[in-house]
Amino acid sequence: MTAYPLPLGFKGAGVAAGIKSSGAKDLSLIVNEGPLQVGTAVFTSNRVVAAPVTWSKSVVVDGEVSAVVLNSGGANACTGPDGFVDTHRTAEYVAEKLDISASDVVVCSTGLIGIRLPMPELLAGIDQAVAKLSTESGLEVAEGIMTTDSHPKLIATEESGVRFFGMAKGAGMLAPSLATMLSVIATDAIVNIDSARSIFADVVSRTYNRIDSDGCTSTNDTVLFMASGASGIELSDDDLRKELMKVASYLSYELVADAEGHSKIVSIEVKGAASEADAVSIGRACARNNLLKCALHGEDANWGRVLAAVGTVDAEFDPYQIDVALNGIWVCKSSAPGEDRSLANLSGDRIEIVINMNAGNESATIWTNDLTAMYVHENSSYSS
Amino acid sequence: MTAYPLPLGFKGAGVAAGIKSSGAKDLSLIVNEGPLQVGTAVFTSNRVVAAPVTWSKSVVVDGEVSAVVLNSGGANACTGPDGFVDTHRTAEYVAEKLDISASDVVVCSTGLIGIRLPMPELLAGIDQAVAKLSTESGLEVAEGIMTTDSHPKLIATEESGVRFFGMAKGAGMLAPSLATMLSVIATDAIVNIDSARSIFADVVSRTYNRIDSDGCTSTNDTVLFMASGASGIELSDDDLRKELMKVASYLSYELVADAEGHSKIVSIEVKGAASEADAVSIGRACARNNLLKCALHGEDANWGRVLAAVGTVDAEFDPYQIDVALNGIWVCKSSAPGEDRSLANLSGDRIEIVINMNAGNESATIWTNDLTAMYVHENSSYSS
Repeated sequence: MTAYPLPLGFKGAGVAAGIKSSGAKDLSLIVNEGPLQVGTAVFTSNRVVAAPVTWSKSVVVDGEVSAVVLNSGGANACTGPDGFVDTHRTAEYVAEKLDISASDVVVCSTGLIGIRLPMPELLAGIDQAVAKLSTESGLEVAEGIMTTDSHPKLIATEESGVRFFGMAKGAGMLAPSLATMLSVIATDAIVNIDSARSIFADVVSRTYNRIDSDGCTSTNDTVLFMASGASGIELSDDDLRKELMKVASYLSYELVADAEGHSKIVSIEVKGAASEADAVSIGRACARNNLLKCALHGEDANWGRVLAAVGTVDAEFDPYQIDVALNGIWVCKSSAPGEDRSLANLSGDRIEIVINMNAGNESATIWTNDLTAMYVHENSSYSS
Repeated sequence: MTAYPLPLGFKGAGVAAGIKSSGAKDLSLIVNEGPLQVGTAVFTSNRVVAAPVTWSKSVVVDGEVSAVVLNSGGANACTGPDGFVDTHRTAEYVAEKLDISASDVVVCSTGLIGIRLPMPELLAGIDQAVAKLSTESGLEVAEGIMTTDSHPKLIATEESGVRFFGMAKGAGMLAPSLATMLSVIATDAIVNIDSARSIFADVVSRTYNRIDSDGCTSTNDTVLFMASGASGIELSDDDLRKELMKVASYLSYELVADAEGHSKIVSIEVKGAASEADAVSIGRACARNNLLKCALHGEDANWGRVLAAVGTVDAEFDPYQIDVALNGIWVCKSSAPGEDRSLANLSGDRIEIVINMNAGNESATIWTNDLTAMYVHENSSYSS
């Protein structure tokens, strides 16, 4: 893997600060040297939020972000007022070292809930990172946020003179031992904050928010977008949306493909829904249904569990007009047996479920995983 | 185990009709010979309901139930109009044999979704059951509805000359391979239908609806109450509620204690909630959180997962004022670390979680299980 250059105007570094006892990289810093410092973010919907989320929400209010510091090895969630002081100190320290305002420094943390961060190590790690900031640091910043990820997740694109860099760690709704999904997308395009806010929120809702490995919502999820404008090229709203969708879709798929303890990647396409929101709700109910996820793990074309999951959703549909296909075989027609279920071959590592609600013209696809004994194993022995 | 007499006025039988390939009992019949034929029931909230639920909902509308026929070995769910014809035929056949009205015959089925019932075997089983109806049949009717239950679940009480009999199979939200919780409670007390309806619905909401093994809602769940009045003794509303709570609480606990693939029984008591509904929602969110359930399986006092689950609930509370105790140790105070988590011993087969929301005076307790590799195993290899 190459070093992955960051977009123009950005520098970064990933270091081993000693927050993780393993000695692996655990702290990443990305600095936006401008000329623009546009920034917007989407945070977890959980009401119990970690200190860095509380802090970072206020940082992005004015649409300006100069730097983001991210650590793995500790979530700094449920740590009380002391934990917030730690986050505040982290942002202040980065600001001092870079001669910027602390109120423009986003902080992200991931790891175990309820444990204070080792601040001496973390601050020394910031010193290290500041000393080695470079433009060729895409790979190392992606490595610095890894937890149980099997590999760093990143993407760099260049299209018509504009560069995008994206990285993610999952976690999140996915590989949830470490209970957080963090992602940063940076570009050197010129974008205005109003467009960036609405387009980024919409892109996130259609990508990161359509993967759902186990229905669990972290206290720390953060997806940050930063633009430096250093390419001197302005992107139209349509082009910005297109590029963001490309980067976010890639990273979302990377997350679900690397979820802890899964044996299959499952797409649930809900068609013929009365609204897109209905389609999302129906897909999500299936993605969260343990019985269905166990059946998929067992390669069992038990479509009754799809219908039982759909039937719990408060959406507009006739419960007796639902069709279900498993890997292309319409095993259920009008909520009754359709084609021979034994024709549905679920033995591969990808399963495609298509649900036609016959209630309208809207659709959505949710990505999830099967439920495995390995998931139970990995998540029952994490903190101790 | 003794034969368990049914309350006065009731006769029953449990037989092996050949619906199950194993040759085990698979059909039960309970007949109420009166003088009263009071009946009321609570059904699944799933919108995709099995044919017997659709049928039985109309049976109980007038408050009269003369008999209930229950089969295991097939759920008759998602079987289309033909499946409804099968249920209708079952009720008609019971009615012919007993010289009662088909519109007073409740039908319950449990087993795999999407498969038609073998009607010749089922009808011959009804002949068999009618031929051996007896008052001493409590055990065999409970056996006839078993699926993956490790033992029949039943209770018989006698208090001040009034008898109650209750049985259940789980399944349901609990041991959900077979995707159904069925339960019947019968008494020889004199009760009026209006009191019975409201008291029974309330009792079910506080017992069966407070156990939640895996968040899955079946297409067939049915809890039926029948009263014959044959004891000649009228129960006050208070006494009826008290006796029903006793029987329903016992059977609910039996269900959660026998859930498939669990290694622990977990009670989640939510105190200090702003409303009882809030307390139930919060308890249920914890009961359905796979990460928390895995941690409990691993005997890991990872209270951060309790807070992460609570934080997803739309209820009235301050996310920074939550206390959590695990087996008596207040590991979390005001949403931050409390007593030393290593003091919480989770090695037994019972775990008590107490969550104080500090938001009011209401409370509720939800019962659930841990999530185990055995659950995945049992539910990934069921139908095939």
